[in-house]
Amino acid sequence: MANFMSICTMRNLLVLSLALNLSLIMRVFYEGEKHGPRGFSAQKADRALEKAAHATQRTLVSLSSSGQDDGEKLINLDHGDPTMYESYWQQMGEKTTVVIPGWQSMSYFSDVKNPCWFLEPEFAKQVVRLHNLVGNAVTEGRQIVVGTGSSQLFLAALYALAPKDASEPISVISAAPFYSSYPSMTDYLKSGLYKWAGDARSFDKEGPYIELVTSPNNPDGFVRHSMVNRTGGILVHDLAYYWPQYTPISSAADHDLTLFTVSKATGHAGTRIGWALVKDPEVAKKMIKFIELSTIGVSRDSQLRAARILEVIINSSQNPGGPESGESFFKISYHFMAERWQLLREAVNKGRFFSLPDFQQGFCQFLNQVSQPQPAFAWLKCEDEGVEDCESLLRGHKILTRGGRSFGVGPKYVRVSMLDRDHNFNLFLKRLASIQT
Amino acid sequence: MANFMSICTMRNLLVLSLALNLSLIMRVFYEGEKHGPRGFSAQKADRALEKAAHATQRTLVSLSSSGQDDGEKLINLDHGDPTMYESYWQQMGEKTTVVIPGWQSMSYFSDVKNPCWFLEPEFAKQVVRLHNLVGNAVTEGRQIVVGTGSSQLFLAALYALAPKDASEPISVISAAPFYSSYPSMTDYLKSGLYKWAGDARSFDKEGPYIELVTSPNNPDGFVRHSMVNRTGGILVHDLAYYWPQYTPISSAADHDLTLFTVSKATGHAGTRIGWALVKDPEVAKKMIKFIELSTIGVSRDSQLRAARILEVIINSSQNPGGPESGESFFKISYHFMAERWQLLREAVNKGRFFSLPDFQQGFCQFLNQVSQPQPAFAWLKCEDEGVEDCESLLRGHKILTRGGRSFGVGPKYVRVSMLDRDHNFNLFLKRLASIQT
Repeated sequence: MANFMSICTMRNLLVLSLALNLSLIMRVFYEGEKHGPRGFSAQKADRALEKAAHATQRTLVSLSSSGQDDGEKLINLDHGDPTMYESYWQQMGEKTTVVIPGWQSMSYFSDVKNPCWFLEPEFAKQVVRLHNLVGNAVTEGRQIVVGTGSSQLFLAALYALAPKDASEPISVISAAPFYSSYPSMTDYLKSGLYKWAGDARSFDKEGPYIELVTSPNNPDGFVRHSMVNRTGGILVHDLAYYWPQYTPISSAADHDLTLFTVSKATGHAGTRIGWALVKDPEVAKKMIKFIELSTIGVSRDSQLRAARILEVIINSSQNPGGPESGESFFKISYHFMAERWQLLREAVNKGRFFSLPDFQQGFCQFLNQVSQPQPAFAWLKCEDEGVEDCESLLRGHKILTRGGRSFGVGPKYVRVSMLDRDHNFNLFLKRLASIQT
Repeated sequence: MANFMSICTMRNLLVLSLALNLSLIMRVFYEGEKHGPRGFSAQKADRALEKAAHATQRTLVSLSSSGQDDGEKLINLDHGDPTMYESYWQQMGEKTTVVIPGWQSMSYFSDVKNPCWFLEPEFAKQVVRLHNLVGNAVTEGRQIVVGTGSSQLFLAALYALAPKDASEPISVISAAPFYSSYPSMTDYLKSGLYKWAGDARSFDKEGPYIELVTSPNNPDGFVRHSMVNRTGGILVHDLAYYWPQYTPISSAADHDLTLFTVSKATGHAGTRIGWALVKDPEVAKKMIKFIELSTIGVSRDSQLRAARILEVIINSSQNPGGPESGESFFKISYHFMAERWQLLREAVNKGRFFSLPDFQQGFCQFLNQVSQPQPAFAWLKCEDEGVEDCESLLRGHKILTRGGRSFGVGPKYVRVSMLDRDHNFNLFLKRLASIQT
């Protein structure tokens, strides 16, 4: 036990030291850019930064592969908890801090002149600025509706879009593999307004329906469009992952009802803030009514915090590496995701036991370069014929994932979070490698 | 116009000056208590403080009655927006401030070891401390479930208590006058699990039911117990107003499922935080599941803020007037409410047009004195035979209230918020007086 403790401590110190290295490297580049000769290009800094990040992460990986993993620790990659982003926000320091005095934001009302009376004007302003900057969604002519995460907005959308006096509940569908919570969220209250009707690909019922289009898709990461092509369909676009670190931004989304969430965009899941961009004011009004009835508005504190976070991201993108703005959030996150996907593909390609989806690269308008899709989840398939249930296999190696059945497909698939902290991600890679040998 | 502006400015200056007086008076007493001879009792300071607060408020009232009300301003006393409390929190200064760095509370999870994994341990700790201090609820042997306001917890309770495989939805009832949102919150999703069944007094359907007991009651302020006395009933106690400023604390509530909310306890409505004390762990588990499915947890930022606010209140009660703790929140709020109710009763008693409920005083264990019920809402009745609809009458005088029909009774009644800012409350009194003359 004493021996184990001493190994742990040494290892922790090493990890700490490596993390410090990374931070120092970043500082050197930041200082270099600030004080360096004119013409020291941002791209150059980016590439160097990328290499340095790679080198450090590889060392971390080799460290965790060097026999330090005692195999006892449970790695929970079932949820998409975006704790990977913590290190970026730590590096950004005090400019990310929000200060709320006891007498601020006490009233229920954020803005009595806005149909969405619980929407903080500062949050709405930063949402519009961010979309204009990234180019991933049209905000003009849209009502912004804020929600307690995008889950609440998904339910608000069902409520708003379902006919109130129909003889039976409207069908809610999505193409498999679909987000695993859609069926239970739709059906848990046995609503007479809407009802889960399964895979959009096999949907053949007459009459109106609501189709959920998640793009890039959770769990598999592919860009998606509506699968059912007939009249009477109402579309809800869940674009939680349509950000430059996960997928090329090909054009500004211009749909009737689009959902976004802070948790996947910036990593602030605990803040519980999402937003919808809604074209039809009557639909927006009903969504607002839903939020009134279910939670009488949305935390003003969280909206203020989210506004600050979005503002920091915008500044970091508009003036990357500047003394006030810090390193570009989307570029750093893109590099981190690229590195993780490269390491994962290397680990998977060492054997024939697993496979991953292949994506087509595309031109990202925001990054102004060709970029690879690198989703927030890995949609891993157990190719080995002896394995029926991939989730059980991984659980046997103390890796918690979510099995394919939850997403409407077979148990050969699992969804694995790519957004956990470095330590867990690296342990995961090591255990994947050990399964294949 | 120029003349009007100059009056306004003078009036504003006067109000400002009076507010400053109040603050100075409080400071004098606070200093007196800190530096005065031993034996200068807290009660003495309390009484002087109370008188000073009365004097200032009366001057404010006479000021607003002196012809400065142009009659054009709409006073919205329809909602129970607790903005009255802002002045207390302003006086308390920086100790009430919460500071949240960008890298804090990013994960979905607050406490993986707690069945309620989204409950911030610090918030839970302050909830228990507060109940122990005030003596208004038993916390031992209870699971605390945090919610996005008590609205979400009310819905979570319906979900948790309704049988999942019944042939028809369970009846949900409450004795009229009942909280106006209960019927719409219960029925808006046309749930197959539960259904609004109206006034508990006339409920005679066989089989199980859920009875909502709000005590003190919203809208009329009376202490309540279950109205239906037979087997098969499940009780949900909404004790949002069971705090010393509104009603005598006679004993610690010891029910199966009890709801509280920060908005009515401390005035922080925009924070959207409520909590439930739940005896049966299985019921608590289902409530937690509801919150997972509807919003994937509760804002961690708001919980951290609420924890700070509760801590400040506890300190102010344990060491009132101390240099670090400030004036006792509950005592000051009690005095403010007492003053408002006295002014309102005076205004109503000037004529025979209106009436108010009569309450029995009781001994408050927390204040250690006999105290009067002084509810957060005034349940006003138009006694005049010529008035059919009290809400319409008041709307004609640009006072927005909520009419009796919303609460399951007749239109002779209206509910009026007693928790608005001074200016609006005083305008309301003035207009009430003008209706009676």
